[in-house]
Amino acid sequence: MTQNPVSQLAVTEQSDYQSPAPPSAEIICVGTELLLGDILNGNAQFLAKELAGLGIAHYYQTVVGDNPARIQQAVTIAQGRSQLLLFTGGLGPTPDDLTIETLADLFDTPLVEHPDLMADIEAKFTARGRSMPPSNRKQALLPVGALVLPNPQGTAPGIIWSPCPHLTLMTFPGVPREMQAMWRATAVPYLHSHGWVTTTIVSRMLRFWGISESALAEQVAPYLSQDNPTVAPYASKGEAKLRISVRADSTAAALAQIEPVESGLRALVGDDCYGADEDSLASVVGSLLLQRQQTVAVAESCTGGGLGQLLTDIAGSSAYFHGGVIAYDNRVKVNLLQVEATAIADQGAVSAIVAEQMALGARALLHTDWALSITGIAGPGGGTPAKPVGLVYIGLATPSGEAISYRHEFSGYRGRDWIRHLSAQSALDALRRNLL
Amino acid sequence: MTQNPVSQLAVTEQSDYQSPAPPSAEIICVGTELLLGDILNGNAQFLAKELAGLGIAHYYQTVVGDNPARIQQAVTIAQGRSQLLLFTGGLGPTPDDLTIETLADLFDTPLVEHPDLMADIEAKFTARGRSMPPSNRKQALLPVGALVLPNPQGTAPGIIWSPCPHLTLMTFPGVPREMQAMWRATAVPYLHSHGWVTTTIVSRMLRFWGISESALAEQVAPYLSQDNPTVAPYASKGEAKLRISVRADSTAAALAQIEPVESGLRALVGDDCYGADEDSLASVVGSLLLQRQQTVAVAESCTGGGLGQLLTDIAGSSAYFHGGVIAYDNRVKVNLLQVEATAIADQGAVSAIVAEQMALGARALLHTDWALSITGIAGPGGGTPAKPVGLVYIGLATPSGEAISYRHEFSGYRGRDWIRHLSAQSALDALRRNLL
Repeated sequence: MTQNPVSQLAVTEQSDYQSPAPPSAEIICVGTELLLGDILNGNAQFLAKELAGLGIAHYYQTVVGDNPARIQQAVTIAQGRSQLLLFTGGLGPTPDDLTIETLADLFDTPLVEHPDLMADIEAKFTARGRSMPPSNRKQALLPVGALVLPNPQGTAPGIIWSPCPHLTLMTFPGVPREMQAMWRATAVPYLHSHGWVTTTIVSRMLRFWGISESALAEQVAPYLSQDNPTVAPYASKGEAKLRISVRADSTAAALAQIEPVESGLRALVGDDCYGADEDSLASVVGSLLLQRQQTVAVAESCTGGGLGQLLTDIAGSSAYFHGGVIAYDNRVKVNLLQVEATAIADQGAVSAIVAEQMALGARALLHTDWALSITGIAGPGGGTPAKPVGLVYIGLATPSGEAISYRHEFSGYRGRDWIRHLSAQSALDALRRNLL
Repeated sequence: MTQNPVSQLAVTEQSDYQSPAPPSAEIICVGTELLLGDILNGNAQFLAKELAGLGIAHYYQTVVGDNPARIQQAVTIAQGRSQLLLFTGGLGPTPDDLTIETLADLFDTPLVEHPDLMADIEAKFTARGRSMPPSNRKQALLPVGALVLPNPQGTAPGIIWSPCPHLTLMTFPGVPREMQAMWRATAVPYLHSHGWVTTTIVSRMLRFWGISESALAEQVAPYLSQDNPTVAPYASKGEAKLRISVRADSTAAALAQIEPVESGLRALVGDDCYGADEDSLASVVGSLLLQRQQTVAVAESCTGGGLGQLLTDIAGSSAYFHGGVIAYDNRVKVNLLQVEATAIADQGAVSAIVAEQMALGARALLHTDWALSITGIAGPGGGTPAKPVGLVYIGLATPSGEAISYRHEFSGYRGRDWIRHLSAQSALDALRRNLL
């Protein structure tokens, strides 16, 4: 879907003519558990993100099981198109952990025992009050000529090895914590000192609510074709995003290049841009309430507590969020929130008037400046032609005691979870826009 | 690391001699966003798990960017070793969505417009009150001879295509929800009817709360070494699981083999087993309440609505869940839930007495049979040596008007989200055990 903003990757992804191609990396994840779908391949994502951040091109990832012939086939293919191969998995002590011996075999290199590694592995067992099982001996066997890639957290060391010119192999265990520690402590410094990292890449993600990815892309079209910084649209969980990325000689230079692009985009799009990077609608609403020293309460029907949960995802939200009422049953709307029974009878529980009365009721009951309410049909049942699944009213009671309501018709086919998520986020967005 | 319990995969992964190899599948995920590490490759995990369940061998996964030359290279390599290629990604309307035209080009096949697909795509835009952008036209262009793999949820259809003998291609969009719906509705039946599924593998996942994976594994140790059915322990999001898997000639035969193993495991472990397969603590609690025709309300402090959200994740929960009070601020605990201000002053808001009074208050206010409450320190701030981050009290008001409380000390280092999740789930589990 999306073009990579800046890295060499994007440049070469877009050009048919690539000569000379920059050296590139390839990720090879070894593990039958990946082929069975028992685990998510978070290691590939971690390494991919790291490579992008270092500006190292990366065009392929391969997953292969704990099988020597297939591992060797994957390496042979990768060697023909990439110069840095990053392996995860297969460094354990069991017979199906085969990565190291398989690589040694492929490059016709004997294994040699490293006494210092052996001592280290034994010490790690001793520290846990256990004696080392004999099977762990093999973790101290590395190909002749390979450097040790130390594993401070576990028993399985990795290697950094150039078995032939223009090829560097790095191996990591499959345990994400160990892999990441080894990557940061040893692999990244090695890449820096061996000419793999030549520039700095800095990205900033602008976040939008209330506009679709395609409408956003249309609005900012001229920016999408520019080169450095690049601007690329994304979408996830109902929000649209624009990533500004730049390649520069230093972080300061990169930030200086990002700043005018960000200002330009924000000016162009206006209030649909709610924040950047780690911001969420809940965190932005929280900051605005803190600035104004105001408070908020909620009254939730179809979201059942989801709006309150979003607000309290933010540490420190007790400074502005007092709480609320989950009014799933209509009697709770009437008894606790003072919604008029006649309003429910006349207009239905999913209506503008009920949303407004719920918000006013929550504001009065919890003594807050603002209150947000949600009433809707999350489905799968309960829809009618006049009020289909996905119809949601959001109410907002303001500090002056007025009530506003907003009508949304979310696509029913997307299902209950999605409708509830969009409802809670849209409620936060309504408050955000009123706080601006 | 892990041996597959049952599938052909495990068998062939372990044997050096493979002749004749069974036909196998390969997953090819297309998307520069995967190479950048922007997203986790959940699609590969989903398809891998499904293939394992169908008993279809699967030895490789490849990730490649939105680049025609590299997509074609990946397909050429895959074609040499696999007979069923499953593609995800690159079916969108933008210029960098290239999967279909790249495949058509590789197999030298023209594209043809499908008027019915075009009408369907336009109708989906109309249903959202929008007109179809011209770029979406290309989603109705498929290679001559390819079958349509319908997408009920989005605009991007997939294809099922045999461009040459012994090769079948299936394409899916990158959006996980759409991909999964298409897989289940069309791809799986196709694989069944075209000879890809020869033996039946049936799995049943037993779910546990209140016992760690390692304690569970110890308790059921004799079962873990048996062969068909196999039993394997898993853990995720605070719960332990046991997967019973069996390979048989028919589903009925498989179920007959699973049944005694399941009974044996349940007898061994007891009430820590809360359900199986798609059950959740919320759905099990819901079923028990429905059986007894009883109702529940909540009073939430640190979870801020998360418990209500879990309960209302279940469609139809309005039959037993009335709602509740989010009592994030202590004044709400006192004013709405009738918690004694002196109890808060003496024991603190995070205490057994406050949890019990919150539950009793919610039960009285919402007129339900049961009420659950949660008060705790989710962090990262707010902890003290006496009351550390992760200390949580759960209160339960029973139909007879009594109050019970439970004290939990969750590991603070796991963070706010984790503590809130475990708190809400533990509250449901407390109610479940009292309903049994």
